[in-house]
Amino acid sequence: MPDYIILLELAGILVAARFGAEIADRLGAPRVIGELCAGVLLGPSVLGLIEPNEVIRLLAEIGIILLLFEVGFETDLGRLVRAGGKSAGLALVGFAAPFLLGFALCRYVFDLSLLVSMFVGGTLTATSIGVTVRILDEIGQGSSQEGQIVLGAAVIDDVLGVVLLAVLYEFSLTGSVGLINAGQVLAFVGGFFVLAPMIAKLLSIGIYRMHAVSSSSGVIPTALVALVLAFAALAHVFGAPELLGGFAAGIALSRRFFLPLGISLKVGAEFDRDVRDQMRPIIQLFTPVFFVMVGLSLDLSAVDWGSAFIWFFSLALAVVAIGGKLVGGLIVNEKLHSRIVIGMAMVPRGEVGLIFAELGRVSGVFDAEVYAGVVLVIAYTTLLSPFWIRLYYRRYGALFAVRENSPSLHEAG
Amino acid sequence: MPDYIILLELAGILVAARFGAEIADRLGAPRVIGELCAGVLLGPSVLGLIEPNEVIRLLAEIGIILLLFEVGFETDLGRLVRAGGKSAGLALVGFAAPFLLGFALCRYVFDLSLLVSMFVGGTLTATSIGVTVRILDEIGQGSSQEGQIVLGAAVIDDVLGVVLLAVLYEFSLTGSVGLINAGQVLAFVGGFFVLAPMIAKLLSIGIYRMHAVSSSSGVIPTALVALVLAFAALAHVFGAPELLGGFAAGIALSRRFFLPLGISLKVGAEFDRDVRDQMRPIIQLFTPVFFVMVGLSLDLSAVDWGSAFIWFFSLALAVVAIGGKLVGGLIVNEKLHSRIVIGMAMVPRGEVGLIFAELGRVSGVFDAEVYAGVVLVIAYTTLLSPFWIRLYYRRYGALFAVRENSPSLHEAG
Repeated sequence: MPDYIILLELAGILVAARFGAEIADRLGAPRVIGELCAGVLLGPSVLGLIEPNEVIRLLAEIGIILLLFEVGFETDLGRLVRAGGKSAGLALVGFAAPFLLGFALCRYVFDLSLLVSMFVGGTLTATSIGVTVRILDEIGQGSSQEGQIVLGAAVIDDVLGVVLLAVLYEFSLTGSVGLINAGQVLAFVGGFFVLAPMIAKLLSIGIYRMHAVSSSSGVIPTALVALVLAFAALAHVFGAPELLGGFAAGIALSRRFFLPLGISLKVGAEFDRDVRDQMRPIIQLFTPVFFVMVGLSLDLSAVDWGSAFIWFFSLALAVVAIGGKLVGGLIVNEKLHSRIVIGMAMVPRGEVGLIFAELGRVSGVFDAEVYAGVVLVIAYTTLLSPFWIRLYYRRYGALFAVRENSPSLHEAG
Repeated sequence: MPDYIILLELAGILVAARFGAEIADRLGAPRVIGELCAGVLLGPSVLGLIEPNEVIRLLAEIGIILLLFEVGFETDLGRLVRAGGKSAGLALVGFAAPFLLGFALCRYVFDLSLLVSMFVGGTLTATSIGVTVRILDEIGQGSSQEGQIVLGAAVIDDVLGVVLLAVLYEFSLTGSVGLINAGQVLAFVGGFFVLAPMIAKLLSIGIYRMHAVSSSSGVIPTALVALVLAFAALAHVFGAPELLGGFAAGIALSRRFFLPLGISLKVGAEFDRDVRDQMRPIIQLFTPVFFVMVGLSLDLSAVDWGSAFIWFFSLALAVVAIGGKLVGGLIVNEKLHSRIVIGMAMVPRGEVGLIFAELGRVSGVFDAEVYAGVVLVIAYTTLLSPFWIRLYYRRYGALFAVRENSPSLHEAG
């Protein structure tokens, strides 16, 4: 594809994302919905103007990696760890329930094969960390108690999703499940999460020193983005999703993150502010590409809207997909209104679900109807849950410590 | 190529560019040389760690487009137009002299064929606008009288280079030169330069309004980058180099650009400052990718260092390449020391020369020896001229209105 076409596509993606976000905002909907819908509109589902290509896919990936860097940077690791027990319970139940319910529904109600049923169950497991953090951020709940629990659970969910994907993929090839393999992946990912922030912190001290002594500016945009991208690649090498590498780098650069053994390597508040100011435009440039890309990938043109099976199948799966996550929320030891909002925040599927669906399709596990049904479920959960979370907060916001207008790194400016 | 490898390569490019720039700075050399050398080091010439791929090539292209946007944004159109006559003379002579001298040298001294001689001449024509503006910027001469003349000439040179490339390419296919075709290209490019800034200005008013009323930030990184990329694509459609689309968009957004017919559409000084603050990190992120990419593309491993022909050929061509541009500088109606510096600033070839060389190689016009000689000339002019321009300014700086330490958009921060 000629370069100027890709430049034009990129320009189109950015403009569409912007207009989508502004229109959504005017309509009282979350902006991220506007960006997702912009992607659905531009993509094969409606206009077919843009087909995802290598370059745009990679820019989208950098977008979600940088978004997770920002989330990590704004995260108070202490609070995240304190929320950890609740996050783990939420993640495990919110992972197992949709998987088992989805599996059972496919196997015993729709009479699909074992492998197909497991793949469909897998598709329903992982929460879209990108969509979830954007929604929480937009309603000013990113750093609330509920937000921290959901963030921790979404991170764990993503890891579990990748492990499950590896297991199912192996099963589809060999017909057997290698639990040792899954254990290895988990151990590696665990090792990454212990080591990565410490290494990243040490490297960030170097960046801080370079920033302090360099006679030219530009240290933060180059060296820091390089650090984030390198940790994303490192995460991949350790078997973790790449975006969690960005998250680990963000955690490490947060001023609230200290190295163990009392190694005190303080960086100034000024550096903290420079990182925020200089990374913000870069993050704002790349992240819409990711959300538009999710919309582009939701290929609704594959859906045969006249098929009764697809409607029944997708609606039944949607009930399971939503119910499973709500069950996860309900077991969290919080007040009822918090449990509900936590469960709702876990509902959007998005990118990981799409990876499952795509793998199912290309490996021939899913036929066209099952694939279409699964994509529809992802569309329902991704596009609708931001609405109802926002409505819920509007209605029951008084029950929470409402901070709807508090600025965050993402929104301030 | 797997995504994480590309992420790792990008991180490597950014880190190498940073270290290269810092080391060059410590050694008293221009930073851009450090970035170019980082590319030579990482590329096939030395370590062979990174092979240019689709994604990196496109990010590099976005880098040079954004750099030219910045240059346009900082340009006083009035001064550029006043310098226009001098720029045009400089560009034409500095274009024709290396072409004719290079052609004559190849045809009558080295006895090469007509087509090869013309291609070699073409390779020597176009000044690297990217390298030139970076050097002028680093020595604080970007907006000096000499800087404006050189900038204008480099823009004209780039247009002429593209026209010549089209003509030579046609000649290599059909054996005849279509001057009507060349005239058409020039007319289109001229039309683009008249229309594009006006359209861009009108669109920028829309962006300004959106920026003023939007409840969220991020208008500038998304909408403005989209505008710049769209104009780069538009430039291509009109037959102009893509980077000049970025330049036109930058000119249009400059506060000193007013629409004709007295249409006064003023945007606030605050918007101007926001554009500067928010675009700077994005530009600083992308531009090193471009300069490293130029270094990567200088494949010196293709050079047979034992060949006497290559040494003679490349040194003779280098004399012609440098002399031709100096002649262009000497005809400019300025004081002698200004003429010399103007001529020297036009010497770096870089990207356009590489495009010629690459086309010559893949179309089979150049054999391995000619290609290697041409690449060496590009390397000499690109890597050495920043040094001597800087040395000249250090030595004779008192003759100029010295502003070595004045901050610009590129350097401040």
